[in-house]
Amino acid sequence: MNTFKDATTEEINAVMEQSWNAFETYRTFSLRQRAGFMHAIATALGSISEVIVAVAMKETHLPEARLMNELTRTIFQLNSYADACEQGNWLEARIDTAIPERNPPKPDLRKMLVPLGPVVVFGASNFPFAYSTAGGDTASALAAGCPVIVKAHPAHAQTSEMVADAIIKVARECNMPRGIFAHVHGAGFEVGKSLVMHPYTKAVGFTGSYGGGKALFDWAAQRKEPIPVFAEMGSINPVYLFPEKLKQSPVELAKLYAGSITLSTGQFCTNPGLIIGIDNEELQKFITTLGNEIEQIAPSTMLHPGIAKAFVTNRNKALMQEHVDTIAVAKQQPDENQGIPTIASATGQAFLNNPVLHEEVFGPYSLVIRCRDMNEMLAIATRMEGQLTSTLMATETDMRHYTPLVEKIKNSCGRIIVNGVPTGVEVCLSMQHGGPFPATTDPRFTSVGADGIKRFARPLCFQNWPNNLLPDELKDANPLGIWRMVNNELTKA
Amino acid sequence: MNTFKDATTEEINAVMEQSWNAFETYRTFSLRQRAGFMHAIATALGSISEVIVAVAMKETHLPEARLMNELTRTIFQLNSYADACEQGNWLEARIDTAIPERNPPKPDLRKMLVPLGPVVVFGASNFPFAYSTAGGDTASALAAGCPVIVKAHPAHAQTSEMVADAIIKVARECNMPRGIFAHVHGAGFEVGKSLVMHPYTKAVGFTGSYGGGKALFDWAAQRKEPIPVFAEMGSINPVYLFPEKLKQSPVELAKLYAGSITLSTGQFCTNPGLIIGIDNEELQKFITTLGNEIEQIAPSTMLHPGIAKAFVTNRNKALMQEHVDTIAVAKQQPDENQGIPTIASATGQAFLNNPVLHEEVFGPYSLVIRCRDMNEMLAIATRMEGQLTSTLMATETDMRHYTPLVEKIKNSCGRIIVNGVPTGVEVCLSMQHGGPFPATTDPRFTSVGADGIKRFARPLCFQNWPNNLLPDELKDANPLGIWRMVNNELTKA
Repeated sequence: MNTFKDATTEEINAVMEQSWNAFETYRTFSLRQRAGFMHAIATALGSISEVIVAVAMKETHLPEARLMNELTRTIFQLNSYADACEQGNWLEARIDTAIPERNPPKPDLRKMLVPLGPVVVFGASNFPFAYSTAGGDTASALAAGCPVIVKAHPAHAQTSEMVADAIIKVARECNMPRGIFAHVHGAGFEVGKSLVMHPYTKAVGFTGSYGGGKALFDWAAQRKEPIPVFAEMGSINPVYLFPEKLKQSPVELAKLYAGSITLSTGQFCTNPGLIIGIDNEELQKFITTLGNEIEQIAPSTMLHPGIAKAFVTNRNKALMQEHVDTIAVAKQQPDENQGIPTIASATGQAFLNNPVLHEEVFGPYSLVIRCRDMNEMLAIATRMEGQLTSTLMATETDMRHYTPLVEKIKNSCGRIIVNGVPTGVEVCLSMQHGGPFPATTDPRFTSVGADGIKRFARPLCFQNWPNNLLPDELKDANPLGIWRMVNNELTKA
Repeated sequence: MNTFKDATTEEINAVMEQSWNAFETYRTFSLRQRAGFMHAIATALGSISEVIVAVAMKETHLPEARLMNELTRTIFQLNSYADACEQGNWLEARIDTAIPERNPPKPDLRKMLVPLGPVVVFGASNFPFAYSTAGGDTASALAAGCPVIVKAHPAHAQTSEMVADAIIKVARECNMPRGIFAHVHGAGFEVGKSLVMHPYTKAVGFTGSYGGGKALFDWAAQRKEPIPVFAEMGSINPVYLFPEKLKQSPVELAKLYAGSITLSTGQFCTNPGLIIGIDNEELQKFITTLGNEIEQIAPSTMLHPGIAKAFVTNRNKALMQEHVDTIAVAKQQPDENQGIPTIASATGQAFLNNPVLHEEVFGPYSLVIRCRDMNEMLAIATRMEGQLTSTLMATETDMRHYTPLVEKIKNSCGRIIVNGVPTGVEVCLSMQHGGPFPATTDPRFTSVGADGIKRFARPLCFQNWPNNLLPDELKDANPLGIWRMVNNELTKA
């Protein structure tokens, strides 16, 4: 229950003023100081894990084990982005030394990434820890050298408040500048809009719905000084069943996907909402097995009543579309605010002709598309909107045989999986959690993995600077021992 | 004289359709194939240098030596971005190998940059070669794997047409897909708008005025699928005269800057349009010398009548502002369409109170600001809009003594120069040609140097792929021998 008051305009102005002042100091802090702060936050969260998980359980209805795992992931993110921050590869340090004898003389030029400024973070309803108050966006921004202002998600405002208090306490202990981290409440859109429109805000991180993310993007683009918005807005994560693979194991694939579709009540942004195959005997076997599995899965409580209500509305809208057949609904009756696992099916033509079937139904729902042939599957891949992930269930022969299809699929997603499930987003440097619009507002960046730090930084070039006044990152002696491109060669020298 | 007809909507649709088809093929081409194409364009331009420079001289009124230098630079850009393309560092290849025994198992994840899609390039009036048809944006996009559609600048449409013909001929010889490069004419804004709004367009490069760049940005943001616009819109490139440095050499600094302000009739986006010092005896000496120098410099013909007219209008508007004194105007009377070198001066208070004085006057004009003290200079730096460059004329003692001022200046520009002039933009990896809004629409990227390739690419993550079906860039054996981050370590292994 959110008992917090929305921040007033005056409070927001005061917060942003303080955040800007903090930026002036924090951006000059060394990589080690930033990393130290982040490690300290990680430690602090670990020490209060039981109490914050208990509060989060009440607010989100997620089970304890799931939340404890998520908190562990959050702590891992903070620690691993802190390590990446200190390792310094993200700085993209480059040095081109002077050639004074050239005509005209070539000046000494050195470049590295520097922070953008205060970053406003909007947390996700489905990840109260890992993509919220102390989550990936916050960790990335702090590593980049940016202060953070978190707009608490109203669905877990108390959890957010407790995490924020822990961060602010750590900031004081680490002698961080006042304003390095701020936390504001806002149940309506006004507080969020004020934060995005504030002239001191220099970037925005968001995880949530298309409607929410697009609104932030539009506001940011309409500012006098437009700013980047990194909004991860979800997707339907299509799964392509290739012929040979499907023939080999229709039952196994169906069982694998029954689990992935209903994991965490389907409340993952990488939930597989669309499964595409050729309409034949094996696909029928797949559909039958998937339906039988889904019928046995118990409904479970969704994150909050609003999400549960939206699931019912969107699922029903999808099921009511022409040429859509309901395949299976979980047999157990759902309690209030529970999401009921559901599978439907439609023809390839129906999908191609009806944009409603392309929309995400956030929750334990998936639509199986029965294509007439591989050409129709290619047509579907060609028309597919931007996605966070796409999955190929395919043998090597399948992949070699249908290269144009594989290429089309590559072009519309941020991550392309072979013979796996899209749920499960590993936190590592090779992860791309992002994808072409409408999956995100900026496919050039990831919101998971240490490359996410780069979202909040820009290059600054130093020309003809005295060596001893350069940042340590660019000094001749390379006192930090980081990798740098020196006269077009990567070196630690 | 532009005798070319504006492209019709049907022609634009046909061009974009072909460009999209070319993308499907070209993006699968190897780095070597892309580089080979770019080298071949460079060679072709070299072989027709005399004839295209002759046409460009007529269209732009720039002198032969200046144009020949620019063409050499253009060829160098094509060759050096081609080399960078093949070297592959820009791909940001990352590999995290699987840990099957972990619980849950860690999948194999690999990531690299892949091209965005067709890129529309709007050339610059002031650089008919280096920032136009075969310029930096085109070279970057081709290296990234994107087809290019150039909207010819109407002020040098004939030059643009000749360069485009050369590229298209080379494309045929190199067996590039039809549509890899297209060239359309459009004197009004309609053609440009249609190109930006076309659903197959995936990014835009632009060099020109604030008005032009901002219009493209707004259109792109309003699309159903927003796309990135990299608009370099110029700036006033402030020069800060620090006290000790000014005291040491007021006359030398004035002579240096008289040259920089009037170089190429002031028609560089890095032209120093604002010089800021403390109002004292040395600054008076600087102003007097600068004025004397400027009076002796002959007016010269500007790029085209529109630019010459805009120079007169904007210069006169600036000179008419309250508290602005005209210091010097070149003595020689200007011919038609010539820009007359002009220096004015105003107090720090006048600058702080009047936004008109912050506006760029494109041409041989600069405004000297007389500050009451260093606090006023700090206030000016704090209020400064985003800039491509800022310059410190400063001794090391100055820089140590006024650290907060130096930090403020760093925060508002893309390149910060010590004891030099901002004109002269070196083509190398350490260059940042970009800067906070309104200098550009995206300070996170550069439009000069091989890092500009990254503007037109996005990361794609491959999860659990069979090794032999991965792109060569990500295969275990590293057949291309590129640098990659493997399990968080940079290696060529």
